[in-house]
Amino acid sequence: MSGEIIDLIKGKELFSSLSKQDLSVLEPFLYERTLKKGQYLFWQGDPRQRIYYLLDGYVTLEKSNKQGSMQYNQYIKKDTLFPYNGLFTGSKEYCHSAIAETDIHVVYLSTDVFESFLSKHNRLLQKVIKEYGKILEGQEKRIQHGIIPNAQERVLNSISYLMMDLGVEYPDYIRIDFPFTTSKLSVLSGTSRETASLVINKLKREKKLTIKEKMIYIHEPQYFEKLVI
Amino acid sequence: MSGEIIDLIKGKELFSSLSKQDLSVLEPFLYERTLKKGQYLFWQGDPRQRIYYLLDGYVTLEKSNKQGSMQYNQYIKKDTLFPYNGLFTGSKEYCHSAIAETDIHVVYLSTDVFESFLSKHNRLLQKVIKEYGKILEGQEKRIQHGIIPNAQERVLNSISYLMMDLGVEYPDYIRIDFPFTTSKLSVLSGTSRETASLVINKLKREKKLTIKEKMIYIHEPQYFEKLVI
Repeated sequence: MSGEIIDLIKGKELFSSLSKQDLSVLEPFLYERTLKKGQYLFWQGDPRQRIYYLLDGYVTLEKSNKQGSMQYNQYIKKDTLFPYNGLFTGSKEYCHSAIAETDIHVVYLSTDVFESFLSKHNRLLQKVIKEYGKILEGQEKRIQHGIIPNAQERVLNSISYLMMDLGVEYPDYIRIDFPFTTSKLSVLSGTSRETASLVINKLKREKKLTIKEKMIYIHEPQYFEKLVI
Repeated sequence: MSGEIIDLIKGKELFSSLSKQDLSVLEPFLYERTLKKGQYLFWQGDPRQRIYYLLDGYVTLEKSNKQGSMQYNQYIKKDTLFPYNGLFTGSKEYCHSAIAETDIHVVYLSTDVFESFLSKHNRLLQKVIKEYGKILEGQEKRIQHGIIPNAQERVLNSISYLMMDLGVEYPDYIRIDFPFTTSKLSVLSGTSRETASLVINKLKREKKLTIKEKMIYIHEPQYFEKLVI
């Protein structure tokens, strides 16, 4: 049974430097689970006991300050390990909550077991560094696009960022494969729902995008690409 | 001569897992340099040839989009390796420019040599991961504090962020040990110079901070700490 779990991850890019034999050490420690949309995997402040690999679906990492007045969201797509935060720092708690945004399929194991395994595998360490580099680059883009004084531009930049980060290409459109509401978009852009809704309605009228069942369909990708150059 | 360069870095936390013998392999590849305030170490788009370790002073990593309309800044303090971006990604160019904000003292070596050395030293790889984690945490805070709709609050949050990141504690104040202008602060906060200046003058009147020779002295740290909880 757990032999099958190894099969679920052994083909993945992150583990591509490891042989099935290397990975077999993890066998007794791996667990597989599916969760329904809306379920929490862990809460901010919980003991940092497990690390997850997302096989299918989308997860949001969410962080709030004590007053709940400031939020940070990060979107995890499939074939990603999470959370990267805290590795080798000895930090005892999760600094985010993790919520299934769609039905999801994950493999998980104990953080201690993973860190100890990781510390023995040089190439895997390098791959983790590469992943960190990618996350960092994404963060820098978000900061760069988020600190535009004009709120309507911030909303446009958020849509561009989501298109680049989560967009899936189809012949006639790019679909942002993640359920978005105006209210989520306004939090991401640091503005009011009203402003976000104003911008989205304008984009709809100009036929630059449509929204069906909370999925954003982008019909003029060049328009949004130009924004993030 | 180069034996002395090793002595400059061997006591540092990042290299603490390595013996002098481990480090001696790097000896022929290490260079030491001082630069005057305002000088560039490299430009965005330059070949990513060197990696630096800052022994003294402050450096800004700066990134612009092609139009120069969007900026990203990151401040590097002493005892830090930079740039972390690009490690093991095979990326050929620097994605930032690096400017000496004060007179600085650096050690540097070829990126290829460093990556090859790094890939052979497990504990150093783990330390690099830990560093990435810290940078990531800082970025998340910046995003969290930067996406507040109210521009004046964003300026306050920037000052808090700088205090936490770059502040040096003295008996009666915390000094942000980095030359700041109102215009830099406004870029960091995504607002106009006027708004930044309005907030700063209010804080001065309330005796929460003073500014002398571009250094910000914070007299009421609790006020700013409260903001970032």
